[in-house]
Amino acid sequence: MNFDLPILAPSILAADFLKLGDELQTCKDAGINWFHCDIMDGHFVPNISYGPGIVGAVRKSVPDSFLDVHLMIENPDNYIDDFADAGSDLISVHYEACPHLHRTIQSIKQNGCMAGVVINPATSTDLLRPILPDVDLALIMSVNPGFGGQKFIQSSYRKVQELKQIRSELNAEFLIEIDGGVGTKNISKLVETGVDVLVAGSSVFKAEDIPERISELNSLALKGSEKVV
Amino acid sequence: MNFDLPILAPSILAADFLKLGDELQTCKDAGINWFHCDIMDGHFVPNISYGPGIVGAVRKSVPDSFLDVHLMIENPDNYIDDFADAGSDLISVHYEACPHLHRTIQSIKQNGCMAGVVINPATSTDLLRPILPDVDLALIMSVNPGFGGQKFIQSSYRKVQELKQIRSELNAEFLIEIDGGVGTKNISKLVETGVDVLVAGSSVFKAEDIPERISELNSLALKGSEKVV
Amino acid sequence: MNFDLPILAPSILAADFLKLGDELQTCKDAGINWFHCDIMDGHFVPNISYGPGIVGAVRKSVPDSFLDVHLMIENPDNYIDDFADAGSDLISVHYEACPHLHRTIQSIKQNGCMAGVVINPATSTDLLRPILPDVDLALIMSVNPGFGGQKFIQSSYRKVQELKQIRSELNAEFLIEIDGGVGTKNISKLVETGVDVLVAGSSVFKAEDIPERISELNSLALKGSEKVV
Amino acid sequence: MNFDLPILAPSILAADFLKLGDELQTCKDAGINWFHCDIMDGHFVPNISYGPGIVGAVRKSVPDSFLDVHLMIENPDNYIDDFADAGSDLISVHYEACPHLHRTIQSIKQNGCMAGVVINPATSTDLLRPILPDVDLALIMSVNPGFGGQKFIQSSYRKVQELKQIRSELNAEFLIEIDGGVGTKNISKLVETGVDVLVAGSSVFKAEDIPERISELNSLALKGSEKVV
Amino acid sequence: MNFDLPILAPSILAADFLKLGDELQTCKDAGINWFHCDIMDGHFVPNISYGPGIVGAVRKSVPDSFLDVHLMIENPDNYIDDFADAGSDLISVHYEACPHLHRTIQSIKQNGCMAGVVINPATSTDLLRPILPDVDLALIMSVNPGFGGQKFIQSSYRKVQELKQIRSELNAEFLIEIDGGVGTKNISKLVETGVDVLVAGSSVFKAEDIPERISELNSLALKGSEKVV
Amino acid sequence: MNFDLPILAPSILAADFLKLGDELQTCKDAGINWFHCDIMDGHFVPNISYGPGIVGAVRKSVPDSFLDVHLMIENPDNYIDDFADAGSDLISVHYEACPHLHRTIQSIKQNGCMAGVVINPATSTDLLRPILPDVDLALIMSVNPGFGGQKFIQSSYRKVQELKQIRSELNAEFLIEIDGGVGTKNISKLVETGVDVLVAGSSVFKAEDIPERISELNSLALKGSEKVV
Repeated sequence: MNFDLPILAPSILAADFLKLGDELQTCKDAGINWFHCDIMDGHFVPNISYGPGIVGAVRKSVPDSFLDVHLMIENPDNYIDDFADAGSDLISVHYEACPHLHRTIQSIKQNGCMAGVVINPATSTDLLRPILPDVDLALIMSVNPGFGGQKFIQSSYRKVQELKQIRSELNAEFLIEIDGGVGTKNISKLVETGVDVLVAGSSVFKAEDIPERISELNSLALKGSEKVV
Repeated sequence: MNFDLPILAPSILAADFLKLGDELQTCKDAGINWFHCDIMDGHFVPNISYGPGIVGAVRKSVPDSFLDVHLMIENPDNYIDDFADAGSDLISVHYEACPHLHRTIQSIKQNGCMAGVVINPATSTDLLRPILPDVDLALIMSVNPGFGGQKFIQSSYRKVQELKQIRSELNAEFLIEIDGGVGTKNISKLVETGVDVLVAGSSVFKAEDIPERISELNSLALKGSEKVV
Repeated sequence: MNFDLPILAPSILAADFLKLGDELQTCKDAGINWFHCDIMDGHFVPNISYGPGIVGAVRKSVPDSFLDVHLMIENPDNYIDDFADAGSDLISVHYEACPHLHRTIQSIKQNGCMAGVVINPATSTDLLRPILPDVDLALIMSVNPGFGGQKFIQSSYRKVQELKQIRSELNAEFLIEIDGGVGTKNISKLVETGVDVLVAGSSVFKAEDIPERISELNSLALKGSEKVV
Repeated sequence: MNFDLPILAPSILAADFLKLGDELQTCKDAGINWFHCDIMDGHFVPNISYGPGIVGAVRKSVPDSFLDVHLMIENPDNYIDDFADAGSDLISVHYEACPHLHRTIQSIKQNGCMAGVVINPATSTDLLRPILPDVDLALIMSVNPGFGGQKFIQSSYRKVQELKQIRSELNAEFLIEIDGGVGTKNISKLVETGVDVLVAGSSVFKAEDIPERISELNSLALKGSEKVV
Repeated sequence: MNFDLPILAPSILAADFLKLGDELQTCKDAGINWFHCDIMDGHFVPNISYGPGIVGAVRKSVPDSFLDVHLMIENPDNYIDDFADAGSDLISVHYEACPHLHRTIQSIKQNGCMAGVVINPATSTDLLRPILPDVDLALIMSVNPGFGGQKFIQSSYRKVQELKQIRSELNAEFLIEIDGGVGTKNISKLVETGVDVLVAGSSVFKAEDIPERISELNSLALKGSEKVV
Repeated sequence: MNFDLPILAPSILAADFLKLGDELQTCKDAGINWFHCDIMDGHFVPNISYGPGIVGAVRKSVPDSFLDVHLMIENPDNYIDDFADAGSDLISVHYEACPHLHRTIQSIKQNGCMAGVVINPATSTDLLRPILPDVDLALIMSVNPGFGGQKFIQSSYRKVQELKQIRSELNAEFLIEIDGGVGTKNISKLVETGVDVLVAGSSVFKAEDIPERISELNSLALKGSEKVV
């Protein structure tokens, strides 16, 4: 994995689903090459979003972009092959949904994808220590998963610091991603604190001018990265 | 409810999700005014399709069409208000998923929608007798729910006859709908047997010329209706 | 079991739980000797009512009355011994909650209780045929279980007739009980149609004068019984 | 499938698991060529028996015998390939465990096995009508599944008659199997009533002289078959 | 929240349910103004206690007291509004039952109640760190939840110390509550160790003289509080 | 409990189930007196192995050996009495399967058995701190549970060290057991790191000469133990 960090990752959940291909192309033209897919099953979270069929459509539309698929579903093991087949580059699963997390992570890798682990706002970063050496990405939920457009939870900054500290202690190499309430007001500080990948949904797709917003978010992220020691 | 029967109801599951708005408009221009939405949660059926967000987008795109939403989900009671709010005109639930089917049907109606009941291929039509006086539509699955593109199960004809017979016995008024493997080869016979609403997915959206296919299916359906005594 | 039919069975769910002992005594003084307990677990039905502890209190308060305990719970097998130990005379379970209904009924009997089976409003009476020879009581829900104070479902009359017919066909001996929306307006007709045990909640305990209401319900029930051929 | 009916099918659940190979050989030497495997997961039934590993061992021990595997498990779809791979010739699933029974039966066949359907003692034979044309075997539980050594439920005779009647009505070809409490006292009457395959557990393996018992059961079964009109 | 600490909180689970109003009044007359309600659903814990109906009755009986409702139920999110509507002042949920604990706590607050979090005897206090800044109360179970009358688990003292230490580290303000096996023998030491709210069930309601026992527990608690540095 | 450490514990999952009695005797003759039983229900792990019936057979075959039964099942509380009755000496349950772990451990002891706790590869040893003073054994899974013959996960060494450290801190006395991928290549180092009980499945039973392999493993384990300071 060789990316220029930080990365802005639009979540297509907030896109206009009547013209998804156009929305993706707009992002692509604005320099985006990492997309985030929020998969919800109505059981792990109280909303149903979309599944492998639409991920496959996204893959067809942006064949060269990186597809980061975040499974907010119960029993994710049952769907790893479907999402891998649909063209995912990375699949993330929730600590809270995986009693056999090590097996699930191995299964993602055996399906040819990179693997990520996600924690909910009330879940301690310490719980991830045994699995962090095995993952490519750790995702901190900065809102409660299930819906777009929620308010950023301030204590997420501390979690970013904790993960950064643990990464250093373990000599591990995973990327730190954040999802929820990311926008122009906090993206700079998030990058400064240590976030590598920033998921933005409403902030990108509900903007009046999407390319301008992407440009703005990218330059704010860059400013944050210049302050990292 | 005042429709000219039989009705051809394209299932958007088979549409191109990169340009859903265009696909819907194409159908609309070809005379379609009833759309079928297949909601799958990855628990009741082994696939995740899409949820209220995309139903809401469809509603926005075709504000005057009839939206018939088929819930292939566990605990559908938890999502009736979400799908009603998204703009559903009719919501159908599975007999196999509803231990309190009467309550679920009442709840759909209290949310201002028409209500339907669905049975899987191995479920007996007799089981529906107590609820049929209360529903607006009974849907016979002629494939196993979960995926598009499956082969029509021949014994479904008998089920159509059985439902027609029960409807007459009970002096009830529900529409009979069929979903799965419907196409040019069987649509005429299905209408002749007694089907009122014909869901067609791949048959419509995978056609080379969608308007032509819709026209063909409609005229075959009409032929079938002329043979009904 | 030797009762003078029809029986009026107050459901204590509607009683004033601040003075339950008094409420029970009032009923007892008005001639009641059969009480109905509605056990809800918040899973099978969307309400939690009360459990074996309160059933045990009721038993202590009315040691000579018949306690008819209706389990609206998932996995009732796990709680049969608790409710038997609490002093139940009869335990009823839902067809919809019991994949191993025959075993559950045997287990109730092995715990020294009489056994009943219950069906929801949308469940067909035909489904009970294999178990009816083994039960002491069949309970028809005339509202959807979960709350008191609901409106009587008119199609329940047909179900009473069907059960009476099946009882005769099978030469079986179970009592027919009805629960939900029973009051002065329909009790007479229910008895006339074939109901043996009439559960009444709000109708009894929300009355201004409970003894008077019990007396009224009893005499209306009696009138109905005189019309039975 | 070409068998001389009736068939005696020992259930290995009752065998001595310290010398399973010897037990199987003893049966084989006594003329047995159909073995019944009772798979219990501790969830669908309140006992855990054994799984695909031991079925595979049985297959290795009696490579030419017919292995009839009865899944008393929740979500049997998840294990059909494992049991097919282990060497099953026929896999049966419970009506009560399969909301998508038609799909499950197809899946068994697609795995190269014959398919059966099973009903519990309180489940009506009528419920099987839609699936019976698709199965190779219908199994009537004459005890509640979960343990060996239980007492035969008398009403099972009626179910045998009902299934035979339905088979004739539907012009179907499935075998009728019975499981639970089968022994020297009832095997003759069961065959006379219409049973094709008789599962016997304790009756065979707890006998003092297994070959003698097999011989006795076989000749009693034969007598029954001579009385069938 | 402005209470004189320590607080003695009788759990009504141990009260006489035949005269609950009188029991509550007795407590009230003895100076109690905080009551603890133990809600059990028979799924999260192996007992069913009571639900919102009885909480509502308690609220009516003691309109000015503080009602602290402890949900020992699966999927507590489904019942927060019911218990808020019933008149709860504070609702506590189990760490072990809440994969989305932050959302659940927010939901309690949005329903106008204070929010608490509970841990079982084998659950580490460290797991609560991310949520403790957001709660009003942390409840340590000093017996396994499900029944009254159990023996106090000695290691609970260490947990009180740990929570006190974490509260100080996080500069948080939650109350520390303990539930299970609290009585005259340990209440003083519990307060001395750092407990703010002491739930007492059997100890209060099974006493020969309830007011005397309340007085005794209160003065022992006060003694403990004088030893706190 | 008074054992000469380290202990080699063959897991019978890898034995030849056609001649289990002989396999056990072979081990016994080679000096084994501790056997490990892997119970899988097909729900907690994706495999069904065997249940109390076969554990009972093992007990009968080796009446004087120590039977260590590892429950890889959901809701283990439901089966503790069955496995205790079958002759278990020690029963272990998974942290990940037990929301009420303290109660489960007490229940094992009340059934007259020693009690163990197990953690999956991605579960942190810190989570066990509250329960470790109460258990007789802590089992580290060094593969993901569900199948035999998997590759040893290297990070398990660190977990052994962590548990040893915690044991010392807590002044506790539990044995440290490891299960998964144990063989001649790592047994010495495992003992040196601190393991007391070494489960070996394939390594023992798939060996060409079982007694020789047992002897080899034992002497390698002994070498490891001599290096422990």
